[in-house]
Amino acid sequence: MKAMDRQQGIDVLFNPRSIAVIGASAKRGKLGNNVMRNLIDSGFDGKIYPINPKGGEILGHTVYRKIGDIPGEVDVAVVVIPAKFVLPVVEECGQKGVKALIVITAGFKEVGHKGAEAEKKLVEICEKYGMVLQGPNCLGLINLSRPYNASFSSGTPEKGTIAFASQSGALMTGILDWSLMEKIGFSKFVSLGNKAQLDEADFVEAFGRDPDSQFILLYIESVADGKKFMEVCRKVVPKKPIFVVKSGVSQAGARAASSHTGSLAGSDTAYEAAFKQCGVIRADSIAELFDVANVYDDMHLPAGNRVAIVTNAGGPGILTTDACEANGLEVTQLSPETIDFLKKHLPPAASVYNPIDALGTASAEDYRICTEAALRDENVDAVIVLLTPQAMTQIPETAQVLVEVHKEYPHKPLLAVFMGGNSMVYPRIVLTDGNIPVFDFPERAVHALAELYKYTVRRDSLKDEEIPRFPVDRERAMKVIERVREEGRRVLLGSEAHEIAEAYGIPVARIRLARTADEAKAIAEELGYPVVLKIASPDIIHKSDVGGLKVGLKTPEEVETAFREILENVKEHKPKAIIYGVDVQEMVEQGRELIVGCSRDVQFGPLIMFGAGGIFVNYLKDVAFRLAPMTRSDVGELISETKISTLLKGVRGQAPSDTKALEDIILKVSQLVTDIEDIVEMDINPLFGYERGKGVCAVDVKMTISG
Amino acid sequence: MKAMDRQQGIDVLFNPRSIAVIGASAKRGKLGNNVMRNLIDSGFDGKIYPINPKGGEILGHTVYRKIGDIPGEVDVAVVVIPAKFVLPVVEECGQKGVKALIVITAGFKEVGHKGAEAEKKLVEICEKYGMVLQGPNCLGLINLSRPYNASFSSGTPEKGTIAFASQSGALMTGILDWSLMEKIGFSKFVSLGNKAQLDEADFVEAFGRDPDSQFILLYIESVADGKKFMEVCRKVVPKKPIFVVKSGVSQAGARAASSHTGSLAGSDTAYEAAFKQCGVIRADSIAELFDVANVYDDMHLPAGNRVAIVTNAGGPGILTTDACEANGLEVTQLSPETIDFLKKHLPPAASVYNPIDALGTASAEDYRICTEAALRDENVDAVIVLLTPQAMTQIPETAQVLVEVHKEYPHKPLLAVFMGGNSMVYPRIVLTDGNIPVFDFPERAVHALAELYKYTVRRDSLKDEEIPRFPVDRERAMKVIERVREEGRRVLLGSEAHEIAEAYGIPVARIRLARTADEAKAIAEELGYPVVLKIASPDIIHKSDVGGLKVGLKTPEEVETAFREILENVKEHKPKAIIYGVDVQEMVEQGRELIVGCSRDVQFGPLIMFGAGGIFVNYLKDVAFRLAPMTRSDVGELISETKISTLLKGVRGQAPSDTKALEDIILKVSQLVTDIEDIVEMDINPLFGYERGKGVCAVDVKMTISG
Repeated sequence: MKAMDRQQGIDVLFNPRSIAVIGASAKRGKLGNNVMRNLIDSGFDGKIYPINPKGGEILGHTVYRKIGDIPGEVDVAVVVIPAKFVLPVVEECGQKGVKALIVITAGFKEVGHKGAEAEKKLVEICEKYGMVLQGPNCLGLINLSRPYNASFSSGTPEKGTIAFASQSGALMTGILDWSLMEKIGFSKFVSLGNKAQLDEADFVEAFGRDPDSQFILLYIESVADGKKFMEVCRKVVPKKPIFVVKSGVSQAGARAASSHTGSLAGSDTAYEAAFKQCGVIRADSIAELFDVANVYDDMHLPAGNRVAIVTNAGGPGILTTDACEANGLEVTQLSPETIDFLKKHLPPAASVYNPIDALGTASAEDYRICTEAALRDENVDAVIVLLTPQAMTQIPETAQVLVEVHKEYPHKPLLAVFMGGNSMVYPRIVLTDGNIPVFDFPERAVHALAELYKYTVRRDSLKDEEIPRFPVDRERAMKVIERVREEGRRVLLGSEAHEIAEAYGIPVARIRLARTADEAKAIAEELGYPVVLKIASPDIIHKSDVGGLKVGLKTPEEVETAFREILENVKEHKPKAIIYGVDVQEMVEQGRELIVGCSRDVQFGPLIMFGAGGIFVNYLKDVAFRLAPMTRSDVGELISETKISTLLKGVRGQAPSDTKALEDIILKVSQLVTDIEDIVEMDINPLFGYERGKGVCAVDVKMTISG
Repeated sequence: MKAMDRQQGIDVLFNPRSIAVIGASAKRGKLGNNVMRNLIDSGFDGKIYPINPKGGEILGHTVYRKIGDIPGEVDVAVVVIPAKFVLPVVEECGQKGVKALIVITAGFKEVGHKGAEAEKKLVEICEKYGMVLQGPNCLGLINLSRPYNASFSSGTPEKGTIAFASQSGALMTGILDWSLMEKIGFSKFVSLGNKAQLDEADFVEAFGRDPDSQFILLYIESVADGKKFMEVCRKVVPKKPIFVVKSGVSQAGARAASSHTGSLAGSDTAYEAAFKQCGVIRADSIAELFDVANVYDDMHLPAGNRVAIVTNAGGPGILTTDACEANGLEVTQLSPETIDFLKKHLPPAASVYNPIDALGTASAEDYRICTEAALRDENVDAVIVLLTPQAMTQIPETAQVLVEVHKEYPHKPLLAVFMGGNSMVYPRIVLTDGNIPVFDFPERAVHALAELYKYTVRRDSLKDEEIPRFPVDRERAMKVIERVREEGRRVLLGSEAHEIAEAYGIPVARIRLARTADEAKAIAEELGYPVVLKIASPDIIHKSDVGGLKVGLKTPEEVETAFREILENVKEHKPKAIIYGVDVQEMVEQGRELIVGCSRDVQFGPLIMFGAGGIFVNYLKDVAFRLAPMTRSDVGELISETKISTLLKGVRGQAPSDTKALEDIILKVSQLVTDIEDIVEMDINPLFGYERGKGVCAVDVKMTISG
């Protein structure tokens, strides 16, 4: 089904005129009863058609024996019958002209092969009739803006601005229950189930279009389609924040990898890269997800990372300062006007610098003075107000004052940390009702604010940037790959990998395969001395470990000796290795050792690695990852995530490296592996980086193609 | 005052027979009234003597005009009068024979120079009469085991097993209030104030001896005496856990450092090292501190890191598994017996592996079966039970079952995560009353358990190990230092630093200072070619940056040329540098580049750094720190904290490094800077590490002494 049709389908899902509940039941405790009850209790204003072969009446609604019996049109059918009956019933739905299905029934893909087959058929029927499908194996859907609850949840969440979709139905039940206590409101509450057709990306797109949804939260264990997810998120993030909890370290990561890149990329690496590249913020825990939502729900986004702290005690002020520093927020310098103002209005012992310490005797009015001054200050992007319950502290009065002040400066985030228990219960209600997020300890408040700031940074860095395309000789590269494949190989020889790299404009050390010592000498003459000799074998990954590498050979005699020794060494260390010969390579000037590589992720495709190269790559692990294709900004961020990037800038009197050339190489690798999907893994290691203006050179290129 | 006397004094503070409240007041709202009220309300069973010049009666107790008027003995005096009256009153207390003082009054060190002087006098008076002093500028003290509340807190916390001391009184008020709501109990509740005499170490020692205290929590902004703090903690940690929140990034860290070690050691580095070396666990936040206390309070410590998870839903099970992996806990393999047992007793669709998924239909009895089986399993050290509120979930019944099961297996930690809100309120009370810690989301539960496990590891690694002492020539080292000091210098020449290192048995490249080219040639002849020439100037730290370094000089002619060029280069780049000549050094075989260094911390003394050496130390920052003096285990841990330690083990076919020799060098540096306090900073960079059996060699030693 086309993306547009899916979106139209979701519009119907969100706003049906009529709903049939297939498997509706009059019996309490049955899921089909829960769904009916929720539909009615949530105040759904459309038509409700319970379907049950027994007929009769359920909760005041006439029961139809089958969907075909319903006189009017049916927009949405909720299916809560045993799995074995689902397929024929869905066929009937199609014939009836139902537009969207919510299949709550479990027993599909999640129970094994047979279930997976049934699920495939289910999707086929839906596609045939142009129906969208949520589920199967899900809790249902709740649209609080309508309002309407087509799920078997116990209870309906409060109305709010958070759109939430979850791959775990059980987690949703917990979150729903918890949200009622914490007074967290939702716009949409969607259980994704098995995601047989509609997936998280479809719903994110719909949430993005939904004026009632301000903030998108996801719990996912995997994404159905990596590219689609990224595309959709890149479109939505500029409009509203997307925060994700992604769980599940899949065992796919345990596969044997023959490249550095493959072995360093964990199963979660591609997700991390994807989230970064499409502006999605990953939260560490469900609690964090809702802390952030709680702050965002009430507030505007911070315009920057400059925080002012107002407190009535030193200790919590220091804790908050520490937390700000640890989370990338700046405890900013207040403007001279603010400092003068505070000096005039606070007791002399108070600290008028940031954190503003109004002392243990601070009254509600003192809090007003400080908080207002901080909110007014143009050096301040957000204000955190700390309160400890000391002898003279006016706790509820201070809460009230903050609510009043917030109304005057509604555009600057104002967070309250009221440290305490029983004496804070009422003041917290005052703050919450006044749309001020309130926490019991400073760290969580700071963290939530920092995550929102991080969103603004990510959002602003999402530019509509072109993917650079270099002129390349794709045909030449493909010829090499076809030849290798014809020979029944998957691992390319050095000379072959270098040729492909060269075809994509990557500067490489020239290399030729020699099968005899004489050939080696002839090639050396042609390339010019000194040369490097390397064993050419698909079975040997780490050449130097087996004595398969000789450098700095200056004469034909040295080449001849080296050729012989390499073969002897390899025969001793790896007697079973298939040997194609010895690669003869020009000896290029030593540069800084870097690595650029690629492996392929099942969900997201080509994953590019950059970092410190050489033989210790796997031990030092100074590498970072991004998904291809990449923009130039992506490459810039990729490089800056490594430690070696500081050295590339030129330190200790060394000239800065040729970053432009390095960026180009990474972009060309990105283009190569995007163009040619046959390449499943590649490493350029080392890639020599030279000083500015002198470029880079790929010294050793390894490549594996798909079988 | 002696440590023993202080402890006797604290015993009196904790268990006085009589208390005088100096500054007692009949007027509500006055601190002196709060203290009286708290004393009486807390049920203090000793004598209470209010002191106030006005006389009369307060809350049923006869008021004395001055402490001398009290007929009986007074163990403890609580002082709540304005600062200016404190000193004469404390003198009177001494004369009366008071044994311990709690000075609540503020206006001492914290208000500046004059206050600091008064505080000094206050301590002098206390020492003269042998009185211990808590405060000044504190909230007071609460001993729940007595019970007795000698503070101006509003409310008294519940009785429990947590001993808590805090450097921030305001934070304490918040925590007290919060603890009443969260039902967290304390044994002792101590406000440290300015720590003029009694400090956190004194109280930790007392908590260590206190049978009512099982768990020690501290909030500190600094420690008063680093060495004492470490000594005391090393004694107490084997008996009970100490968890600390240390806040406050002091500005002392911003001082200019002339060594790599000095510039890489942040202001918090010594604290981090100290906590590690004395087995104290640092928490990131106050909330975390109490999560851990909450779990520990009810439970035994985990015997290992192997966790079993019981759940009625897949999603939360995955979240918990992820959290375990991230926190160093192992989601363990269950024993075959457990798996068989579960297969027999659970529905076929259930997962009988870890996480044990009893399905959404799990009854309370299913939870009993799974939880019992997990607790019984010898492969399991702790069990986390997850519950989501699904249609058929028996929430309070399951809580009850867990309480029963816990009673059967009280020695294995059992944590509950009941995800939800309103429907979890009552079940949570059941769990809490049954001594099972309960959380609303899995991540915090896992983190708390992991921290307790970390404590057991730290505790067990605290061995009664000797500090190794090598035979050294201290006198020779001191002679060099005295000579340098006589010349009015602080930065040692290379030859001088090398001599001191040599005196301490550190293998160094031989080096001599040459003042002329002829001297250089003569030294080169003596050392043997090839040699290295390096500029000898206290003003030049990075020699290679200014052309002050020439290596591999093989002939007298090369030495002569190099000598001239070095002087020319330095004159060009650093015209104002003072030049002592040129150091001539033997050229040693290239080894792996390491760094060992030392800087001095104000609180904790010599701080040793080890890591990857060379000219990029400051950029790669692959270093770790420990405080001197060190045991061999300390050194082992120090090395293993760096990334380069993996390379030292020998990888990619390389021989392993000489770790024993490396450890010896670090221990000798540790001995050197412990013996000779004059050395304020030193770097050995590079230290060449060779393969096993071939030792190490200090190539370049830099040293600065105190002025």
